Amino acid sequence: MATLSSRMAKMADTSYVCKELFEYITDPEVIKLNIGSPASEVIPIDIIREITNDVITKEKRGLEALGYGPILGVESLRQTIVKDLLRPKGVEVSPDNIIITTGGIEGINMAMQICTNKGDTVLVEAPTFIQAAQIFDMFEVNMVSVDMDEDGMRVDDLEKKIIEHNPKVIYVIPTFQNPSGRTLILERRKKVAELASKYDIFVIEDDPYRDIRFTGEDLAPIKAFDKTGHVILCNSFSKIFTPGVRLGYTVASDEIIKHLWNVKMATNSHTSMFPQVICDEFFKRGYYPEHHKMICDIYRERCQAICDGIDTYFPKGSKRTNPEGGLFIWVELPEGIDTAEVQLEAKTRADVKVVYVTGEKSFIYSENDKPITNTLRLAFGASSPEKIMEGCRRLGTFFKEKLNQE
Amino acid sequence: MATLSSRMAKMADTSYVCKELFEYITDPEVIKLNIGSPASEVIPIDIIREITNDVITKEKRGLEALGYGPILGVESLRQTIVKDLLRPKGVEVSPDNIIITTGGIEGINMAMQICTNKGDTVLVEAPTFIQAAQIFDMFEVNMVSVDMDEDGMRVDDLEKKIIEHNPKVIYVIPTFQNPSGRTLILERRKKVAELASKYDIFVIEDDPYRDIRFTGEDLAPIKAFDKTGHVILCNSFSKIFTPGVRLGYTVASDEIIKHLWNVKMATNSHTSMFPQVICDEFFKRGYYPEHHKMICDIYRERCQAICDGIDTYFPKGSKRTNPEGGLFIWVELPEGIDTAEVQLEAKTRADVKVVYVTGEKSFIYSENDKPITNTLRLAFGASSPEKIMEGCRRLGTFFKEKLNQE
Repeated sequence: MATLSSRMAKMADTSYVCKELFEYITDPEVIKLNIGSPASEVIPIDIIREITNDVITKEKRGLEALGYGPILGVESLRQTIVKDLLRPKGVEVSPDNIIITTGGIEGINMAMQICTNKGDTVLVEAPTFIQAAQIFDMFEVNMVSVDMDEDGMRVDDLEKKIIEHNPKVIYVIPTFQNPSGRTLILERRKKVAELASKYDIFVIEDDPYRDIRFTGEDLAPIKAFDKTGHVILCNSFSKIFTPGVRLGYTVASDEIIKHLWNVKMATNSHTSMFPQVICDEFFKRGYYPEHHKMICDIYRERCQAICDGIDTYFPKGSKRTNPEGGLFIWVELPEGIDTAEVQLEAKTRADVKVVYVTGEKSFIYSENDKPITNTLRLAFGASSPEKIMEGCRRLGTFFKEKLNQE
Repeated sequence: MATLSSRMAKMADTSYVCKELFEYITDPEVIKLNIGSPASEVIPIDIIREITNDVITKEKRGLEALGYGPILGVESLRQTIVKDLLRPKGVEVSPDNIIITTGGIEGINMAMQICTNKGDTVLVEAPTFIQAAQIFDMFEVNMVSVDMDEDGMRVDDLEKKIIEHNPKVIYVIPTFQNPSGRTLILERRKKVAELASKYDIFVIEDDPYRDIRFTGEDLAPIKAFDKTGHVILCNSFSKIFTPGVRLGYTVASDEIIKHLWNVKMATNSHTSMFPQVICDEFFKRGYYPEHHKMICDIYRERCQAICDGIDTYFPKGSKRTNPEGGLFIWVELPEGIDTAEVQLEAKTRADVKVVYVTGEKSFIYSENDKPITNTLRLAFGASSPEKIMEGCRRLGTFFKEKLNQE
């Protein structure tokens, strides 16, 4: 067999981790705290069927939804995004600064096409989103970690790493970060935009969870403070509408959007029209505000359940983050346990049967770093509060046993 | 602004050509013989609405269609592809050798991720599909043309170019080629597979038009003769189902499919589930055979109209191809006219108003080549036979005037 491209070797290293994120388990006894899926209760099946029934006709939007469409995406959906999702957050752009993508991931992929050559450096958070790391591997860039604390990426360490590594891109998930659940505070958002301008570096702002806030105050995206066009904002409809439609949007400067046009053309021509039209109608018909409230209510309850579950059942000395939104929480267990080592046992042993994502793989290690083996990511979106509590009980008991705690 | 990736400069050159392919013209008087869109009559709007109405419920396939899905795509759709679209053509693979893509273009993009590094060489047909050339520019590969005749890519020239240029990939559209409308004959298909094995080169077989045959005998894809896993077959549902859903599929060896899994994950996670489920049901409910017959009938009539129109109205000395299927026909006008130079006038002048795609840009030129300026691609899918005849009349008269013919 002919030699494959060099990027394939790099990607093989991360792919098994991504398999874990998407692992599909049919055993109903297994409690799945691994996957960032939304609750099935929040998927607006009936509304989508109703909308389809109404607009997929020759007289209305049938031909539009089923024919080839514009590269940037359905114009009225882009107008909706400006009006309903960006302007209220302080991002002032025109619909022509938006391209509709096949999910949020595609936005990161396309931004990387534009910003980086092989061998460039991308700064990422520690921990970072492993699927994004796989994209970065595909582009054969070097990743360097920036420290985080409870207020998100540390901007002092960011500037230090900028000076040391001369990066092309800063990749940041500012709100309810995946995997940590932390949120970048406002001053730091401003500072990231400022550093990007000062040092002439692109920011890929990946913000798919931002609209699932269940407590605390809304924060403007980094893009709102971008005066020089360095910030490319990638967002997604997966969490606020439904994931299976694979819809996302990327917001960029006039210059960058022209290049996104070219890249989209060479990636898949344009995003599927059928889901775009349905999503557009979903917003236009005013379904979003109530739907939005409903999903925030559901996730608030589930987040509370997982916080309680961890606090009640996990080993003494465990620390957890305190998410104000999103789908993930991050746990640091006491030292002396390797969450990767016991993962399979936790998934399969009859008295446990809980799936989680190990934390270790979310860190990009430098040469002298000691691997962090005692962390895990738990996703609370897809399970009921009762299941979440039961999962925490089983998992906490299991970890205590491994740590020889009572 | 920070320096963009080096691939952006390369892409800027081809992007204006692609704009031409997707140009959207609202003037109803303009006859659009540029776009490879299907006829609006063949888009199964009512069937799609009916299917949605039936299966997008909680009890049936609603959660599947709207939730995250498998990276390779909906399994039963992949089974349908094997049974209905591949096995009858002599391609024996398992559903696990198939990945569902966001249109056929994405298959080419992903195959390139796997096969090529920057600076590698890709052999293409002369003329080739300009949007594919844009993908190749994004991957920063060199393109080298292989001569064509009425039987498709010339395999003697192919072997010569293989020996001269040591390519990584042969890109070929074997059936009703875009832009020429020509079909690679059976012996040559076998020979392409054989040369790929012999010289250890990947073949990207782009075959989206193959099922729109209105005359002549069905030919097995090159993939059917692939004994060594060198052929990656990319196909699309755009022409046989509907383009707006952006569905395609790529067929590859066990080894390559593993890498496609990784690449898909890093491109957009998976293809939109909603259209996949609807397309799956379309085939399962038995709508395809009748639909297929209907589209072939419509395009047969339109192809006949454009052949008649060219033969009747175009300048003396014009040559055209003789497509047995697909959506495109290729015309070589007598020398002395530059189709790019007069294109804008043809589009805008009150007595013409016809849009076509110039041929020149579909050729990848080597250093000593003289540009071919007297060719054009006409698409006959989207206009009625009457409009096609009228378009040929206006365009023929216009070209005659330019050539000073009576």
